[in-house]
Amino acid sequence: MSNIKKVQDFLIEHAIDAALITNPDNIFYLTNFRSEPHERLLGVVIFKEEEPFIICPAMEVADVKAIGWSHGVVGYKDTDNAFEFLDNAIQERISELTLLAIEKEHITVDRFEILQERFPALQFAKLDGEIANYRLIKNETELDCLRKAAELADYAIEVGCNEIKEGKTELEIVQAVEQAVKQKGAEKMSFDTIVISGKKTASPHGIPGDRAIKNGDFILFDLGVVYKGYCSDITRTIALGEPTDEQLKIYETVKKAQQASIDVVRPGTLAKEVDLAARSVIEEAGYGELFPHRIGHGLGISVHEYPSLTAANELPLEEGMVFTIEPGIYDPTITGVRIEDDVLVTKDGVEVLTKFPKDLKII
Amino acid sequence: MSNIKKVQDFLIEHAIDAALITNPDNIFYLTNFRSEPHERLLGVVIFKEEEPFIICPAMEVADVKAIGWSHGVVGYKDTDNAFEFLDNAIQERISELTLLAIEKEHITVDRFEILQERFPALQFAKLDGEIANYRLIKNETELDCLRKAAELADYAIEVGCNEIKEGKTELEIVQAVEQAVKQKGAEKMSFDTIVISGKKTASPHGIPGDRAIKNGDFILFDLGVVYKGYCSDITRTIALGEPTDEQLKIYETVKKAQQASIDVVRPGTLAKEVDLAARSVIEEAGYGELFPHRIGHGLGISVHEYPSLTAANELPLEEGMVFTIEPGIYDPTITGVRIEDDVLVTKDGVEVLTKFPKDLKII
Repeated sequence: MSNIKKVQDFLIEHAIDAALITNPDNIFYLTNFRSEPHERLLGVVIFKEEEPFIICPAMEVADVKAIGWSHGVVGYKDTDNAFEFLDNAIQERISELTLLAIEKEHITVDRFEILQERFPALQFAKLDGEIANYRLIKNETELDCLRKAAELADYAIEVGCNEIKEGKTELEIVQAVEQAVKQKGAEKMSFDTIVISGKKTASPHGIPGDRAIKNGDFILFDLGVVYKGYCSDITRTIALGEPTDEQLKIYETVKKAQQASIDVVRPGTLAKEVDLAARSVIEEAGYGELFPHRIGHGLGISVHEYPSLTAANELPLEEGMVFTIEPGIYDPTITGVRIEDDVLVTKDGVEVLTKFPKDLKII
Repeated sequence: MSNIKKVQDFLIEHAIDAALITNPDNIFYLTNFRSEPHERLLGVVIFKEEEPFIICPAMEVADVKAIGWSHGVVGYKDTDNAFEFLDNAIQERISELTLLAIEKEHITVDRFEILQERFPALQFAKLDGEIANYRLIKNETELDCLRKAAELADYAIEVGCNEIKEGKTELEIVQAVEQAVKQKGAEKMSFDTIVISGKKTASPHGIPGDRAIKNGDFILFDLGVVYKGYCSDITRTIALGEPTDEQLKIYETVKKAQQASIDVVRPGTLAKEVDLAARSVIEEAGYGELFPHRIGHGLGISVHEYPSLTAANELPLEEGMVFTIEPGIYDPTITGVRIEDDVLVTKDGVEVLTKFPKDLKII
């Protein structure tokens, strides 16, 4: 309930009548209700003082109550006009709606136009940054989930390493890893598991397929799990057989770059400094052009959330932020290598949540 | 390429300068490039005559080329302003942009405002319905994928039935099913697999957990797979041990209702008639209040797409449409039952793509 209170305080401070929250991850953060509405309307409406309500498909009303939500629930059927139900439920609670906070980074233009048509004089305020800021600093309960999710990610890499064998396909390893980690308590994967091998590792977002692993390959694992609604995200690159000098040089550069970024993490460091720490190591080694993405992204209920750690972000780090550190070098003629950990900014430094070893593992 | 041509013809017909498509499923339909951009900008821009281009993160440029896309590709880095790159690439191709078609059901208000700021005089047209209409009618290549996806869904149910055993948990069965179907060729599940049991079946969107299956339970499977980018979606409800008369009556009512809906599918039938055929069977049996959702939804690249089969949709069915038929009765005091098939509207009737038997299976 304290998270809803934060939104209420924001509404009071800015004299906003109400907030309509439709991003499922934000709804989970605020209400503990988790659902994927597809094209249907799912929202929570919060007022300065009046009781909040969840609007959802009729068939989910019982689920909302079952998680212990003790406030209003408005269910609509597939033949109903959901926005009419929304409108009525708002009018039951407040006499006039003149300023509504919405998530402009989530709500579609189509729905926005429906709102504009229904409330012609209504003004809109942007709520995204506000909720992103609440979510930016994790509390102890959230950290427990994130630590457990990271532990399961470590376990998944361990399973993956044990599966590596000449002739096995990438997809076979994906299956073995996902099965093992779910048996160990992961709710689901936080995104489609990546296991790619050989030259395919040079694609940062490569897709696993039927390629059989060969001696001399680097095998890149990028995966994460969801535990009690919180995500992990880890990358390790493993060698099958003795690596060449060129492969080794790329690996050691990425490893050194990743450690350089970890070493600067503490309250007060700017987000961009985390990026630049790794980037300068990679540039000095002559691979600057082959590191085409930011160093990392925030992690929590969403697998990508704030902060975004680019070379341009001047945000100072604060205790309680959790994000990935994942430099990579992608040489299409040799190999790709990425090493990624999840880290927490602590009072005076950093806690690395993922702990699978980073010395090059040769199988 | 013919799908891009459809958009070009639409632009010419309506004197629209260009279309910006950002829905990943539509991008896949138009370009064959599949990617999950998270918060990054991914789009394809199509003109009346000039060459189309894909705008994507720099790290995905090689992936775009690898799938055989022979047109323009614009990559931007995480520190770049993606909309500036978009702007420049458009200006390289046409001298004036006055009317742009966008997907109002997909693009966010935030991005819309960025476009408005960058192109102050720009007018916008809505493109969603147009592309949804192309995707509404499946061609033979698409139908081959949908049939194969349905076959894999049948197989998943078969595996699930073999896993049913007193004491096994819902999540254990989920794992076994997913593993088996992926080994058999499914790229991934089309949504989070549902295996729920006992009274939990009374939640249409129930979430599998650690509940152990008991004798006397109904076990509800709702799952689907993705095969070459196309989705299936099947539901079967299975009994462990002899059902009670009340359970049996609910099951037989749903089965009869589902068949009634299938029986009316042919070109010219209105979407709502498919819904009402099942709904009237369920209402006559006295369960009307316990069927709180539409009869089904379109199926293709998205697991929910057009047509939406509600009791209010007057759309006439046409040959080549594919959708689900999934009535359910959810009695929280007895059990939930849902039976779902994927069907194709043929020239003179219906082809049921999912074929797992629907007589109550008692284990």
